[in-house]
Order: sequence, then C-alpha cells, then structure tokens
Amino acid sequence: MYEGPVQDLIDELGRLPGVGPKSAQRIAFHLLAADPADLTRLQEALQRVKEGVVFCEVCGNVSAETRCRICADVRRDATVVCVVEEPKDVLAVERTREFKGRYHVLGGALDPLSGIGPDQLRIRELLARIGSTEGPTITELIIATDPNTEGEATATYLVRMLRDFAGLTVTRLASGLPMGGDLEFADELTLGRALSGRRQI
Amino acid sequence: MYEGPVQDLIDELGRLPGVGPKSAQRIAFHLLAADPADLTRLQEALQRVKEGVVFCEVCGNVSAETRCRICADVRRDATVVCVVEEPKDVLAVERTREFKGRYHVLGGALDPLSGIGPDQLRIRELLARIGSTEGPTITELIIATDPNTEGEATATYLVRMLRDFAGLTVTRLASGLPMGGDLEFADELTLGRALSGRRQI
Repeated sequence: MYEGPVQDLIDELGRLPGVGPKSAQRIAFHLLAADPADLTRLQEALQRVKEGVVFCEVCGNVSAETRCRICADVRRDATVVCVVEEPKDVLAVERTREFKGRYHVLGGALDPLSGIGPDQLRIRELLARIGSTEGPTITELIIATDPNTEGEATATYLVRMLRDFAGLTVTRLASGLPMGGDLEFADELTLGRALSGRRQI
Repeated sequence: MYEGPVQDLIDELGRLPGVGPKSAQRIAFHLLAADPADLTRLQEALQRVKEGVVFCEVCGNVSAETRCRICADVRRDATVVCVVEEPKDVLAVERTREFKGRYHVLGGALDPLSGIGPDQLRIRELLARIGSTEGPTITELIIATDPNTEGEATATYLVRMLRDFAGLTVTRLASGLPMGGDLEFADELTLGRALSGRRQI
C-alpha cells in the first residue's frame, strides 16, 4: 500500500500478536515522527532479547542473572514451590502478595495436538529439584497451571508423576467464583466447581 | 516487574501508541520465542525508517523515490489535487477508487494549542504548487481534511488563502450520514450536516 521502508515496517509490526493492520500503520507513523533516540532504545531492547535472555537455572523464569531474584532470595521459603506455566504467571502470583515460597516455570502446558509433550516442558527439572538432596527439602508443591483443558491435563500428569515422592503434599489452586463476580453470570462449569469445592465457614 | 532485557523490551513496546502493558508483555514473550530471523527483519525495518524515510518532493507523501508513484504517474489528472492531512488519508481516498487526480499531504492540521500553525504544515508548498507555471494548471482543489475541529479550521484557513487564485475551484468533502449507518444512531452534528447538505434527487 505504502512505498518502501514504511510498508516494510508496517508489515513487520503487523506480524506481532494483537497488532492488526490499522495498529501497525499507527505505530509505524508514530515511529516515523518519533525521536531517533526512542527508535534506538527499541532497537537495542530487541537486540538484547535476541542475544539471548537468561533463564534462571533453578526455576526457569526469565532472569537477569543465572539465578533469578526469587530463587536467590534466602527469605523466601524454599520448601514450598508453586508450579506455573509461564513467566507471566509468576508475576500474577507475586501480585497477590500471598505467596512467600519459590516457583517452577514449566514453559507451557501439555498440548499433544500442538506437539507439546512432557519432554517439551521443564518437568524433568522439576522432578530433579524435588528429588535433590541439596538445600531444604520441598514439602509442598502448589500446581498453579491454568484452569483450562491443557492446564488441567498438565496438573493431572504432574500429580501422577509425583505420587511416589513420600512426604510431598501436592495441592492445586482452588477453582470457583471469581471475587467481585456475580452468581447469575457465572458459567455452569465454574459454578459447578464452586459447589463441589464449597468450604465450611 | 521482570528482570533485565525482557522488562526493557516490555517498557519500550509499552511506549508505542495503542500498546498497553498487557499487550507489550504479550508481544515481548512472542518475540522471545520467535525465530531470530523475524527479530532481525523487524530490527532492519526500524533501521531503514530511522535512516530517513523519503517524502515525495511534490505532494509530501511517504515515498520510495524523490517523486512518489502517484505524482510520477502521467495517467493521473494533474489538474485536480486532493488536500489531505496525513499519508494514511491518501490511502483512504485511494481505496475508494473514485479519485484519479493527484494529492497534497499537509502533514497535519492546524492546532494552535499544540503549536501547529500554518508554518508547520505544507501550506506554503501547496500555494507554490498552485501558482507554479510549470506543468498543467491546477483547476480544482478538493479539501479532504478530517471533519473535526482541527480539520475544519484547516479547511477554512485554506479557503481564505486560496480566494485570490482566479480559475481555481475549491471543494470540500461532503459531510453527512455514513453509508450503512442508521439515522437513529447518528449524532446531532452529523445529522445536522446531512440536513443542510441535502441534495435533490
């Protein structure tokens, strides 16, 4: 549609997730008019990510060092580990300020149709971590995979793999009505979970 | 929130128009997992835009050459010029396939509060183009600035500046109900314009 470099940039931006042709055009014209220093900063940020992001050798979260801030923090309880799918899930749990343990990032969820089996996830590393004799023993594993088909399948698989570890409690995040929600608008699956998971008050 | 390069990239992406913190995070993790070749293409596209996009010396549209495809096309009527605010407006008019003339891109609209006066727009170039004795004489100028405050102010200003050119017809795009729209949902300003601009059928 446009000529030369502008269209190339629009095309490249349009390939990013959640950026449609209109947004790509808007971003491109914004960048055209932007301070070259802004463009340089964006380019440098891309370059650093391209050169390789470091993942924590313990939990697999994105990190600035070989060991992430959470794994390096001695005040965090190393006996409780929360298993999540993605680095962004670590952030979501951290925001609750309810959890003082450590994490394990699987790097996704089981999805055989997309070719993601146990070997594509960091499950082997998790088992090694639980079985390790170095440092404090892990006594509780909170499975915090997403409450969807893939996340549930991953949780079920993990529970089966972890049955043999004596002294390890495996828990799953509670499913139920979202806080601030409305009973009337809850879907039947969520309401069903809320019923079966009801607690005495 | 994240550590190191990933957060830098999220920050930079979040500065782009229409990209919120959640989208920035999503794009950053997409880029993390992407083929390095994709990242390289995006970087190169940014670099080319940074090195300077060429603007057509005649109409001011973004261009691959010193003269854009439309201005270089001898089949396009050089006596009719459509005046638009931005390069993307050229595209919008082109998509109608109704216009066979040339364009003039102002580079914005009058907006004194943001410090955009006549000197910040390509109005001097437009007057020079109309007054030029080279090539065919421009006989009609279609003012296609946006139908908002700034666009209307720009149109009014242009009409005043162009009064002295004998033999030049100045027209403005029609305002009225959008096609496929619904009378009931039209705002009063649009409906008012549609009424005052009614045509005999």
